[in-house]
Amino acid sequence: MRLTASCPVLLALGLAASAEAAPPVPYPESFRDWHHVKSVVIQPGHPLYAGVGGINHVYANAPAMKGYAGNVFPEGSVLIFDTIEAREADNAISEGRRKMLGVMVKDSGRYADTGGWGFENFDAGKPDRPLVGDKADAMCFGCHSRPGTRDHVFSRPRD
Amino acid sequence: MRLTASCPVLLALGLAASAEAAPPVPYPESFRDWHHVKSVVIQPGHPLYAGVGGINHVYANAPAMKGYAGNVFPEGSVLIFDTIEAREADNAISEGRRKMLGVMVKDSGRYADTGGWGFENFDAGKPDRPLVGDKADAMCFGCHSRPGTRDHVFSRPRD
Repeated sequence: MRLTASCPVLLALGLAASAEAAPPVPYPESFRDWHHVKSVVIQPGHPLYAGVGGINHVYANAPAMKGYAGNVFPEGSVLIFDTIEAREADNAISEGRRKMLGVMVKDSGRYADTGGWGFENFDAGKPDRPLVGDKADAMCFGCHSRPGTRDHVFSRPRD
Repeated sequence: MRLTASCPVLLALGLAASAEAAPPVPYPESFRDWHHVKSVVIQPGHPLYAGVGGINHVYANAPAMKGYAGNVFPEGSVLIFDTIEAREADNAISEGRRKMLGVMVKDSGRYADTGGWGFENFDAGKPDRPLVGDKADAMCFGCHSRPGTRDHVFSRPRD
């Protein structure tokens, strides 16, 4: 009886877990030593300026670098979109404070509902200021599912 | 007699070597996997635009990262100034081709005449297109000896 009684409970717990927030995305402590993939400056007037206006750098850990070479990123891939304030003066754009740290983590088990990727944006790069939480589907996955991505990744590496 | 005769010859050879071109700066094959230190965009109208107009990235190898923490960079430090073409469109500045790869190598024995640093700029990042050669004193060391540098280095790291 205990087993038969427990099955619906476990199922219910499973369903409850699925309906709850996605597992949190770990803060990528060592990302500044990862491979710098490329950069782009987003200026006033750009449709993404409110979110990522500034000097943006993409970083990739070692598994993610292997992912760029194929069509699917391996488990454990982490990609960073590091948004730094752009300070324009004297015909130069230099870097100010960190505005936001975007993170994508490939873990197909934990993030099955969003293409196997966990998404998070840490406000000002602070580990205790996640802005996405359980809203990855609406805030991130919609755009990252558009045509033109490869395994939900927009960036391509350069030499 | 051979010894005494050879001494002036060796001295002359030494002087000749000193007056000749500085030893070539090795091409930094793996620099794209080094630490990305910071970036700056140099725009039209900037006094350095002719040389390094574009999106510039500074990279440092492991000894150079230790150098940033002190006042003197250790032997073997290599710093990169990677100049990438800036393509402005639709309120964004994206990266084009590599325009120039600037290299500083700390080797006090080889580059004693220029503060212990060897300097080179590789046109378009091509190993067979060095632009500085024996003109490091005039092309590089003058500016890199100005007040405000630390051990002839302008850049400072950021988080």
